[in-house]
Amino acid sequence: MKSYIVLLLNALFVISFFPCFGQNPKVLFALHGGAGTILKKNMTPEKEKQYREKLEEAALEGFEVLQSGGSSITAVQAAINILEDSPLFNAGRGSVYNYEGEIENDASIMDGHSLEAGAVCGVQNIKNPINAALAVLMHSNHVMLSGSGATDFAKKHEVEFARPEWFQTEKRYNSLQKVKERLKEEQNGEKGKGSDQKDKDNSSGYNPDYLDFNDYKYGTVGAVALDLNGNLAAGTSTGGMTNKRFGRIGDSPVIGAGTYANNKTCAVSSTGHGEYFIRLAVAFQIAAAMEYGKMGLQEAVNVVILTKLTQLGGKGGVIALDKKGNVAMRFNTPGMYRAFVAENGEVTVKLYGEDEE
Amino acid sequence: MKSYIVLLLNALFVISFFPCFGQNPKVLFALHGGAGTILKKNMTPEKEKQYREKLEEAALEGFEVLQSGGSSITAVQAAINILEDSPLFNAGRGSVYNYEGEIENDASIMDGHSLEAGAVCGVQNIKNPINAALAVLMHSNHVMLSGSGATDFAKKHEVEFARPEWFQTEKRYNSLQKVKERLKEEQNGEKGKGSDQKDKDNSSGYNPDYLDFNDYKYGTVGAVALDLNGNLAAGTSTGGMTNKRFGRIGDSPVIGAGTYANNKTCAVSSTGHGEYFIRLAVAFQIAAAMEYGKMGLQEAVNVVILTKLTQLGGKGGVIALDKKGNVAMRFNTPGMYRAFVAENGEVTVKLYGEDEE
Repeated sequence: MKSYIVLLLNALFVISFFPCFGQNPKVLFALHGGAGTILKKNMTPEKEKQYREKLEEAALEGFEVLQSGGSSITAVQAAINILEDSPLFNAGRGSVYNYEGEIENDASIMDGHSLEAGAVCGVQNIKNPINAALAVLMHSNHVMLSGSGATDFAKKHEVEFARPEWFQTEKRYNSLQKVKERLKEEQNGEKGKGSDQKDKDNSSGYNPDYLDFNDYKYGTVGAVALDLNGNLAAGTSTGGMTNKRFGRIGDSPVIGAGTYANNKTCAVSSTGHGEYFIRLAVAFQIAAAMEYGKMGLQEAVNVVILTKLTQLGGKGGVIALDKKGNVAMRFNTPGMYRAFVAENGEVTVKLYGEDEE
Repeated sequence: MKSYIVLLLNALFVISFFPCFGQNPKVLFALHGGAGTILKKNMTPEKEKQYREKLEEAALEGFEVLQSGGSSITAVQAAINILEDSPLFNAGRGSVYNYEGEIENDASIMDGHSLEAGAVCGVQNIKNPINAALAVLMHSNHVMLSGSGATDFAKKHEVEFARPEWFQTEKRYNSLQKVKERLKEEQNGEKGKGSDQKDKDNSSGYNPDYLDFNDYKYGTVGAVALDLNGNLAAGTSTGGMTNKRFGRIGDSPVIGAGTYANNKTCAVSSTGHGEYFIRLAVAFQIAAAMEYGKMGLQEAVNVVILTKLTQLGGKGGVIALDKKGNVAMRFNTPGMYRAFVAENGEVTVKLYGEDEE
């Protein structure tokens, strides 16, 4: 009899380690590698293979962290590190060049359980900018650090640095030259062509026509995760916009615009024309539509991306997860590099619009 | 007969200049000068008079712009300029010092009609930082510019600069010394006293106990306006947090956190412990509670400030207006410098909690 009681107590003890017991605990992982004019006709089979393999590798890495009991924050970081280290994406290595021919990175990360967040913008030579954002989340009472101050903070907290050459790629350098040439042409007679309706300062490389699909200005990487404890997290990392100037900050390091996570609603990472995402607080707005509007994840994402963002004239997309295990990957551009790992470990990788896949 | 037709046509022509004809067009204006431990017992009659007079002057200036047919954006700018030029408030002249003993300013402004927005952060020697934010709104395709790049942009667009001495006040310098002494004491044995529960980097001057009410770390100025065309606007300007470090960006230049305006819902300017306002996207969340949750302005402000912000541990407040002419001025600190001008031109200025007024 006594041994039965001991067994029962042991069983209860073991069960107590599974906080979601009885609630069918599941882990889920999704990521994106940027949205833009990604069309099958412009892609070679070899290039497509490279993208698919790298997206799958990163997604599986995130999923494995979750399966082995790691936190959603750690999973998001691990997957983004892989995308940052790949020259294929506009984040970390392979980031775009700014007007001065330098590379400046932005990143942010948020924990849906505590609503703690960390972000860095305009940092230089940090190998994995998302790790600097995580250092801010963990070690600073601030949420958002910028410029050389943020770089100093990362140094102090032993975030890994790399030499400038590590980040540089010929592809991105050529993009910068192309943008500068186009601007020169416009200034020499074609002024106004394709420019904004207002008398805006186009030296910042705004015109979406400047770049072909390989140089999509909407490039950014991001990830969202749900871990065994039912905690959501989201993170985003980017090199920003080719030829950006004047210390431009896009949506990626802005909590509420580029990144948001709240266990009560959802985790979101954005990619797109950052200015529109800031003006609509896109990532937070999806969470708010769920909380205040009682919408499901899909409906909230559709309202914000397909209606609000599109009506304002913004381009881009998001990936989002909720606690119930729903996933949404929505964009109003021709394509978005994206991957999703289901509960059973099955990976789905897509690059184009649903009709081209 | 013919002359009657001419008269009628003339009348219609005149009426067409009043877009709100038949809808009882009204103008409204509200502003804040920061929230914090503002208590009557700590205030001298002379000091109180100074604050009340400056708040009234700025509020009336904003109101007069509106009454004479100016836009809500212009009214917000005009009133904030007066608060920025006064050493009483932590914005423009009289801004707090950062860790390096320098003054760095943040500001943002948003137009509720177009959802266009402009923001600058970490700018130096710009006399009225809100004017730099407005220059971004008007002349840049970006929304948020930072550091020396933002300062260069302001120069290019002929925003007025001032010498460093213009911004400096003895009061703020003494605050910095006081904070630094307190930090030194903590590091020499009293470590952890009053600090955050987590192992956070307190060198950033987080501890709310550091500063007395004169140096309220929640100091910021902001304004919201409704103009004759029914357009809402909001703006916020600040020197940030005393002893801030590592290029810290607070909520004031973050669209969605410190500032938000949308004609469909409301205009909001925040003041408080910025990190919490970013994590909750406070300004946008109030608009979202109205849009998605079908709440009135007062209810939305109460939910976000009195419930959400307070539960997370954040301190501060907001001023908000909606299109129907409702105004809300809510805070969870002992006081908030605030003023409101009603439709009939009557000004209300308050400094303390409602029970002390």
